Amino acid sequence: MRALEEKIVKEGKVLPGHILKVNSFLNHRIDAAFVMEMGEEIARLFYEDKPSLIFTIETSGIPIAFAAAVKLNIPLVFAKKHKSGNLSGDLYKTTVHSYTHGTDYTVVAEKQFINSTDRVLIVDDFLANGKALEGLIDIVNQAGATVVGASAAIEKGFQHGGDSLREKGYKVRSLAIVESMDDSGNITFREQ
Amino acid sequence: MRALEEKIVKEGKVLPGHILKVNSFLNHRIDAAFVMEMGEEIARLFYEDKPSLIFTIETSGIPIAFAAAVKLNIPLVFAKKHKSGNLSGDLYKTTVHSYTHGTDYTVVAEKQFINSTDRVLIVDDFLANGKALEGLIDIVNQAGATVVGASAAIEKGFQHGGDSLREKGYKVRSLAIVESMDDSGNITFREQ
Repeated sequence: MRALEEKIVKEGKVLPGHILKVNSFLNHRIDAAFVMEMGEEIARLFYEDKPSLIFTIETSGIPIAFAAAVKLNIPLVFAKKHKSGNLSGDLYKTTVHSYTHGTDYTVVAEKQFINSTDRVLIVDDFLANGKALEGLIDIVNQAGATVVGASAAIEKGFQHGGDSLREKGYKVRSLAIVESMDDSGNITFREQ
Repeated sequence: MRALEEKIVKEGKVLPGHILKVNSFLNHRIDAAFVMEMGEEIARLFYEDKPSLIFTIETSGIPIAFAAAVKLNIPLVFAKKHKSGNLSGDLYKTTVHSYTHGTDYTVVAEKQFINSTDRVLIVDDFLANGKALEGLIDIVNQAGATVVGASAAIEKGFQHGGDSLREKGYKVRSLAIVESMDDSGNITFREQ
């Protein structure tokens, strides 16, 4: 999505440790009209796969996942992160390793909100090593539902999470794939 | 908003401790089309006040705040919760007391995203004792910006946070005001 690549170049900030900050339109301040355009692009890419549910994880994936849900006219479920295992209720649970924080966290979703007949499209703001996405896929599998694909606003191609999922046969479509970035702020994108 | 009151009666669950769970359409599973209707109603209620920015707090207020931002065609900023004071960057900070958890937490927003010229509409999913909203108002005041009003999807009228803000002169419009609810699940709404 060319408009997103241009926005990343214009507003994004590359920080040490391969961090790309897009706080000005996607992660803290939200450019609502632009995020709706991104949602429309996700809807266009996955319309043919007939998703019945969007699935994301709190917090910063929620706006783009919500936008995709609006454009596809289907509901959204967001999984919740917990640091403790002290949880009640009828929940699907999985464990995700965070390389950023060097810890594991538990991800949960209420069982009643994912049915075995659901065709689930996973949406998130970032896709890097893919560990969060794998956790969400695990929950969908526990529910006996079908993963029709995954979409991230921004994929860090050099961290290989997206390609690893593609090799496993998943349809993964990111709106922009950063192939490389350096501390001077130079960013190159993968041709799609 | 009659359709919201009907949905609360049909899908909401009253739990001990004056908890109203609306996990099926607002807080965990999101009924995207319905939340957009709620955003449209908020836009209608505050259009005349010419808001330039929607301000909310993570996590569960984000979908309805985003929907209102889309309908008003203005950006959204969501404040972040932190348990520690260990924060970097140029941030506005305030402390909010959580009666639910019996602890204080720090709420932050990056200074660059709220300007002194902004006319800020605060949106959240719930309004109970109003402590979270007061924290957001404090941040808007620190920025020297103007609070044009506040809107919650569901206000718990019997916890008086909304009326306390109204008495201070704020325009507070909630889409549904629960006047009373009991453990048998009986819910009454304030006429608006």
